[in-house]
Amino acid sequence: MPRNGEAVRKRLQWSALELFRDRGYEQTTAAEIAARAGVTERTFFRHFADKRDVLFDGEAEFSEALTAAISNAHAALGPWETLLVAFDSVKQMFVANRPFTEPRHRVIAAAPALQERAMAKSRALVAAVTSALCKRGIAEPDANLVAWMGMAASSYGVAAWFKDSSTDLGEHMRRAFQLASRLAQPNATQARTKAKSSETGTRGRKPRTRPAS
Amino acid sequence: MPRNGEAVRKRLQWSALELFRDRGYEQTTAAEIAARAGVTERTFFRHFADKRDVLFDGEAEFSEALTAAISNAHAALGPWETLLVAFDSVKQMFVANRPFTEPRHRVIAAAPALQERAMAKSRALVAAVTSALCKRGIAEPDANLVAWMGMAASSYGVAAWFKDSSTDLGEHMRRAFQLASRLAQPNATQARTKAKSSETGTRGRKPRTRPAS
Repeated sequence: MPRNGEAVRKRLQWSALELFRDRGYEQTTAAEIAARAGVTERTFFRHFADKRDVLFDGEAEFSEALTAAISNAHAALGPWETLLVAFDSVKQMFVANRPFTEPRHRVIAAAPALQERAMAKSRALVAAVTSALCKRGIAEPDANLVAWMGMAASSYGVAAWFKDSSTDLGEHMRRAFQLASRLAQPNATQARTKAKSSETGTRGRKPRTRPAS
Repeated sequence: MPRNGEAVRKRLQWSALELFRDRGYEQTTAAEIAARAGVTERTFFRHFADKRDVLFDGEAEFSEALTAAISNAHAALGPWETLLVAFDSVKQMFVANRPFTEPRHRVIAAAPALQERAMAKSRALVAAVTSALCKRGIAEPDANLVAWMGMAASSYGVAAWFKDSSTDLGEHMRRAFQLASRLAQPNATQARTKAKSSETGTRGRKPRTRPAS
């Protein structure tokens, strides 16, 4: 059984993910996760603060990469393009982590305690993005607003990519940002109807019950 | 000491708010809140599930009013205008609750446990808004995306109103939605520079360190 740090850490994460998926989050203990990974409960708590945290490793690394990309974006870019460029530049992290994050997505959706932790992580990421945008000369409340909107667009892009992997994540992300731009407009209905063919996530859409304005 | 439900509930909320503000959230117990309100700890827990919940009363009522306004918005309105109209139509609730929500804002900002609960409440509100938008014929992922963006815009509007009460909340909300529309565009920097004079929250802005694109 490998006792070296990184390998044990990974085994604990995968063991947790599998147990949460198969038995449910509430029904799984840290001791059971440790046992499945072939280590003691004490080792579990050397790696993670609690049972929830085992699913959220690597968030700091992601946040650092994303904020560095925001800082390095071309100075002429406005905040919205900056965010798109930044998310695009870290897409390899999404791709590399997908085997873990895709099943995690479903595990989180099924457990309110994990949703709460996921929201706290999103909030921390928005704070980091806000701070990086402020350094580009955007006022703090504006930076926070656009950070939340960009985060919502990127989540949409990732979810669309999970559903349809035949298209590259970068392309899903670009479409999600375009869709978000259109949706955040007073004439969004009209814009959407016109631009329908170029959108992601249009399959399975409910029929419109009212005419476009 | 009034023992009737609604009055006791209000006293507990105000007692909690004052204690959290003066001593800090972590340093205050449910028993102390109850004592300050002149009731027993048991009465506290008849009204609230835990110490955090005492600050988040009335969220269900707000959610119902907001989603009803979304359903009742003119059928020709797109999702963005629908959200603005809906937030505008519930502005009296913000006004009526401001004596409580404004100091609460600062108390929440100082306590991570309260931030986590506030985020969970926002998430529930976004889910309710998403569902109401879906009933208007918007696809679920799109509705969720625009709901998050609208929520971010409305938070901006309320924060701006807390800072500058000489302008009506409805006007702050309208400006926040306009700002959000501009920020979620590829040419946001340019748009912002042009429209600067009509914006909220521009005071205290950091100087731009780079030219508009």
